[in-house]
Amino acid sequence: VTSQSIAPGALMAAEVAEQPAVLAQILAASDEFTAAAERIAAAKSRFVLIAARGTSDHAGLYAKYLAEVLLQLPAGLVSPSSLTIYGARPEMHDVLFITVSQSGRSPDLVDSLSAARSRGALTVAVTNAIDSPLAAAAEIAVDVRAGTERAVAATKSYTAQLLSLYLLIAGVRAAGAAARLPEAAARTLALTPDDRLAAVAAPLQYAERLVVTARGYAYATAREAALKLMETSYLSAMAFSGADLLHGPLAMIDRSVPVIAVTSPGRGGDAMAPVLERLHELGAHVLQVGPPDGLPIASEGIPEELLPVLEILPLQRLAWRLALDRGVDPDRPRGLSKVTQTL
Amino acid sequence: VTSQSIAPGALMAAEVAEQPAVLAQILAASDEFTAAAERIAAAKSRFVLIAARGTSDHAGLYAKYLAEVLLQLPAGLVSPSSLTIYGARPEMHDVLFITVSQSGRSPDLVDSLSAARSRGALTVAVTNAIDSPLAAAAEIAVDVRAGTERAVAATKSYTAQLLSLYLLIAGVRAAGAAARLPEAAARTLALTPDDRLAAVAAPLQYAERLVVTARGYAYATAREAALKLMETSYLSAMAFSGADLLHGPLAMIDRSVPVIAVTSPGRGGDAMAPVLERLHELGAHVLQVGPPDGLPIASEGIPEELLPVLEILPLQRLAWRLALDRGVDPDRPRGLSKVTQTL
Repeated sequence: VTSQSIAPGALMAAEVAEQPAVLAQILAASDEFTAAAERIAAAKSRFVLIAARGTSDHAGLYAKYLAEVLLQLPAGLVSPSSLTIYGARPEMHDVLFITVSQSGRSPDLVDSLSAARSRGALTVAVTNAIDSPLAAAAEIAVDVRAGTERAVAATKSYTAQLLSLYLLIAGVRAAGAAARLPEAAARTLALTPDDRLAAVAAPLQYAERLVVTARGYAYATAREAALKLMETSYLSAMAFSGADLLHGPLAMIDRSVPVIAVTSPGRGGDAMAPVLERLHELGAHVLQVGPPDGLPIASEGIPEELLPVLEILPLQRLAWRLALDRGVDPDRPRGLSKVTQTL
Repeated sequence: VTSQSIAPGALMAAEVAEQPAVLAQILAASDEFTAAAERIAAAKSRFVLIAARGTSDHAGLYAKYLAEVLLQLPAGLVSPSSLTIYGARPEMHDVLFITVSQSGRSPDLVDSLSAARSRGALTVAVTNAIDSPLAAAAEIAVDVRAGTERAVAATKSYTAQLLSLYLLIAGVRAAGAAARLPEAAARTLALTPDDRLAAVAAPLQYAERLVVTARGYAYATAREAALKLMETSYLSAMAFSGADLLHGPLAMIDRSVPVIAVTSPGRGGDAMAPVLERLHELGAHVLQVGPPDGLPIASEGIPEELLPVLEILPLQRLAWRLALDRGVDPDRPRGLSKVTQTL
C-alpha cells in the first residue's frame, strides 16, 4: 500500500489512534528502560544537556523539566550549531548528554553526540530507529518502540519519546505512575469524538494565525501543538510560555488571533490563571485544553509530569481535522521530508 | 515631557539612534567589566545557566553561544518555572548563573537567582537597573548603562546587554575586538537611510505573518527581531533557527509569508546557504540582512560573535517604520507594560 492509494490523513489518523498501544508496548519493556535508567543514575551526572530538532526537541524540552524537577539537576537544551558550525568542544565530564530523534539520522545530532562523548559526557540516544547512526554512536541507546511512522507529521513517535524519557529519568519510581497511561490515553482520545472535534475546529477554519500557550511541563505540549498545526494546516501557530507571552507577544493578540491554552491540572495549569485573565480582558478567542470546560484529558490518577503524554492527543486530532477542513492532506505536508539533513 | 505630547514612535526612534553612544559608554567603563569578568573567570565554573524573559532572553541566548564557543563550557537557558512553580532546588556548585533583565524587577528572576545562589551557584545580574532587587540579590551585579529606556519595546537596553555579556564572558580578549563597535553601529544605522527603509518596509505593510530565520550567533537576532515586530507592528512574526525551519515550519511558508533571513558574514551566515536555497525554491519573499544584497551591516573588522550588536539595528528600524506605516504607535504597544510581573 503506498500513501497515494489511501484517503488523505489516513496515515496520521491511524498513527494517532495507535498511541495507547504504543504506550502499552513501552511499559511492557519496562525492564529495559529500568536497566538503562540504572546506568544513567549510577553515573551520578551533575548536569544534563539535551539535543534534538523539530518534534523531538519538544520531547527534549519535556525532559529538561523532568531533569530539573525530578533529578534536581541543572539542565539545558544544546544548540547543536555551537558544536557543529563553531566546532566548540566543551569539557563534558559529569554531563549526561541526551539526544532525541525519531530517525536517528540527523547528521548534526550524530556529530553533536560524538563530540560530547569524546569530551567525557555519558551519551544517550532516545530514538525510534535502534539501528541508526545515532544509536550506534551513543553509549546507551533506547528504542522508543513506536513502530514505523509513515505520516511526515510525527505523532506516536512523540508520545513514545515522552514516556521513554520519563522512564529513563524518573527511574524506579516511574513504573507505577505510568501504568495507567495507556488506558488514560485511550480514554482521552475517546473524550473528543469526531462531532466535538468538528465543532472545535470550525471557528479555526479560516484562521491564518494562532497562539498556543502553557507553563511548566505543558509548555512542551504548546510547542508541539504549534508545530503540528504549522506542518499540517499551514497555520502560523506561535507557541509561548505563559510567562513570556506577557513580555511582548501579547501586543499582537486581538479577537482575530485565536489562542489555545493548555491548562491541565497541576502547578503549570494553576500558573496560567493570570495569563487566562489577561487573554479574557483582551477578548481573545481561547480554546482551553483541560478542566473545567476545555478539551478533556483523562487525567485522574496521572501525575502532572506525565500529563504531556495526554495533553497532546486532542491537539494532534485538532491539527488533523483542521488540515482536512482546509483542504490539505496532513499526511503529506508540502516541502517536508521525514529525515532532515541539517549540519 | 510626557509620552502623550510627542510624535508617535519618537521615543523608540531616539533610543534606537542613541545606541552608538550607549556602546561607547559601556566601553569607557571597560575596567569595571574586566574586574567582573576576572571574578567570573576565577570561579572556574563548569556549567553556565542563563535566566531571562522577553528581549533579555534573546540576550541570554546570545550569551549561551558565547559560553559554549568562547568559554567551551556547557550552557543552558533556565526555565524559571522549574525553580519557581515546581520549587526545584538543583545542586549548583560549579555553576555560573547569569540573569539578564532590563528592569531587574521580574519576581521570577529574583527568585530563581536567589534559589541558585542558595544552592551554590556564582550569581550574576546583568541589568539596566543597578539599584534593583535582582542586582541586590546577585553576588556580581553589572550595570549595562543604557540609561532610562522609555519606549516599551526594548532597543538600546538590548544591545547594551549584548555588549555587556560579551565583555563579561570574553574577558581580556574582548576589549580590542569591541573597540570599533560604536562607530560600526553608527555606520550601520546610516547605511539604511529613511528612503531605503521605506522601500524595504513597503511590501510588508499588509503582511499578517512573517518568519525570521538565522543560525548560530545570529539566531538571537532572529528571535529579537521577531519580538520587535510583534510588539510594535502586531505582526505574527515567528523566529526559527535555519535548521529547525527545515523540520516542519517550512510547510507553512509560501509566497504569502515573507521571510527575513539574517546572513551576516561568518559561519552562521554560511550555514544559512541551504536554507536560503529551499526558500528560493518555494518562491518565498526573502529580505536578507547582510551581504551581498541585504540590509547592510558595517561588519568590517568586527568578529562574528559581535555582529548581533549590529544586525539588530536595521531590524529595530524596520519594526519602527512598519508600525508607523500600519498606523500603530511603536512607543505604546497595546496590552504591555515595561515591567512584567510573572511568578
